[in-house]
Amino acid sequence: MEKLEYFQALIQQKLEGFCRKNGEERILQPVNYILQLGGKRVRPMLTLLAADAFTDELEPAVYPAIALEIFHNFTLMHDDIMDNAPLRRGQPTVHEKWNRDVAILSGDAMLIQAYQLIIKTRSECLPPVMQTFNTTALEVCQGQQLDMDFQDRTDVSAAEYIEMIRLKTSVLLGGAMKIGAIIGGATEEDQKHLYDFAIALGISFQLWDDYLDTYGDGLKTGKQVGGDILANKKTLLSIKALEHASAEERDLIVGAASYISNDDKIARVKEVYAKYGVAEFIKTTAGDYHRTALEKLDALSIAAPKKEGILQLVDQLKERTH
Amino acid sequence: MEKLEYFQALIQQKLEGFCRKNGEERILQPVNYILQLGGKRVRPMLTLLAADAFTDELEPAVYPAIALEIFHNFTLMHDDIMDNAPLRRGQPTVHEKWNRDVAILSGDAMLIQAYQLIIKTRSECLPPVMQTFNTTALEVCQGQQLDMDFQDRTDVSAAEYIEMIRLKTSVLLGGAMKIGAIIGGATEEDQKHLYDFAIALGISFQLWDDYLDTYGDGLKTGKQVGGDILANKKTLLSIKALEHASAEERDLIVGAASYISNDDKIARVKEVYAKYGVAEFIKTTAGDYHRTALEKLDALSIAAPKKEGILQLVDQLKERTH
Repeated sequence: MEKLEYFQALIQQKLEGFCRKNGEERILQPVNYILQLGGKRVRPMLTLLAADAFTDELEPAVYPAIALEIFHNFTLMHDDIMDNAPLRRGQPTVHEKWNRDVAILSGDAMLIQAYQLIIKTRSECLPPVMQTFNTTALEVCQGQQLDMDFQDRTDVSAAEYIEMIRLKTSVLLGGAMKIGAIIGGATEEDQKHLYDFAIALGISFQLWDDYLDTYGDGLKTGKQVGGDILANKKTLLSIKALEHASAEERDLIVGAASYISNDDKIARVKEVYAKYGVAEFIKTTAGDYHRTALEKLDALSIAAPKKEGILQLVDQLKERTH
Repeated sequence: MEKLEYFQALIQQKLEGFCRKNGEERILQPVNYILQLGGKRVRPMLTLLAADAFTDELEPAVYPAIALEIFHNFTLMHDDIMDNAPLRRGQPTVHEKWNRDVAILSGDAMLIQAYQLIIKTRSECLPPVMQTFNTTALEVCQGQQLDMDFQDRTDVSAAEYIEMIRLKTSVLLGGAMKIGAIIGGATEEDQKHLYDFAIALGISFQLWDDYLDTYGDGLKTGKQVGGDILANKKTLLSIKALEHASAEERDLIVGAASYISNDDKIARVKEVYAKYGVAEFIKTTAGDYHRTALEKLDALSIAAPKKEGILQLVDQLKERTH
């Protein structure tokens, strides 16, 4: 566990240095603000762990790791505008605290700052690192586009939904690990194993998130149980139920039917879910992805102790969400 | 003139290839749309001319040149949201034709695509090219921030205004030339001369634009003469007049006074301008920057014929705007 703590401290220190350097520059205040809201810093952790698996020379991976955290927060800043979200980690979102234009422009600046950091590595790594980062970044935007498109559709398939979460959340985890692996000097095969590991892990975690929103322990997840149901949100649960639902059940799920109380609606939707074995389906699917992830990690040509840190991070994340 | 035409054709061909490759991808439709609205392609022209001044091997400069045009159009897409602009080159802006969220997200994708193109050059040039591009991009955002800040202020100084246009428009011209020079193999001194040339040129052109909006020939500029005055826009003209204006004159300029007709307001503001010699001041200032630009070009350690293309482009731009 010591290694993970050391990496966390290193990331925190570098992020603080980054914010300090941004100083009082007006356009960068929202950048500092959103970074200081906290977060688990999963993406830079993955970059450092991936590099660490192949080299003892971590220094060239540190700024690219930070770049991935900056990029992630840039997407949050712009997504929050598009989602009209009032809060982020319990605090006002940037477009609420300042305004829409500030959130657009500071987000743009933040994306550029991610590029300023991603290039702070060994120059011979620059072409593959840049290529991976660019591809990943564009895919994340495509994922957000799909997510928005899905809001207006009632015929989204399970496969389409999984492809959306792969793009919107998993490729950035994959990109983070691949970039660490490239900088660490991994073979292309090992780069791919780590990328595939993170993709599968990301999908499995996202599906678990969906499951726990309906079936989890609210005290543990910190969310209102049934929140997705009340918001008529598209998740693998509702999508799977819609595949089989009657017209009446469909109305209930998509929010076209009236109901007595929130508890009533949640209970009735859960009945529909139970009828079609939706909970089992999502647990099985998430489990499959989790297993795939571990297989990919297993295939990696590094000694077992080097995989330890990665497995510990997986456990930590499970601890917090499962 | 042949060289300029060849460069223009090359840029057009590469831009068309870029749009073709974007194909029908939903998030990239607005990217293709804004690019196909046209434009003088000044920034990629500057990149190619700068590279051409130092090498016969233009190929490694072509995609970075395109990257600068993509970046420029990305800023237009996002600025149009912030400015609530309904039209761009006479056509609906992206946020009007689609919606706000599309303009944000496709703009983000466009910025990432600029990075995909800027790295398509000789790998040994990558670090300085990336650094120049990043610095430039961030400064352009800072310029937009200043421009927005100035809307709410009545005490903007001439120096502040010029600093704003330097950031908002000139540094991208400077960056375009510097990147071309780097790829062409110029010394750092020559890179700086070209950068400084483009900065001074950009400021002089912007000031001329401001001048012509009030004193130009509407038929030639294609704009309504006095448009800036009617919009109470901050330009070097109004800023300079405000330095000396009485309370009554100030109200007229900032739009707090009533007036009989548009022509009446334009005439009265022009009287104030005349009283304080504002037209002369802006002409002198623009002329000074233009002279500085030519001196920087003169200082360049290349043979005169190599400077010809650059001077021809300057003349072309003057032709269209002066």
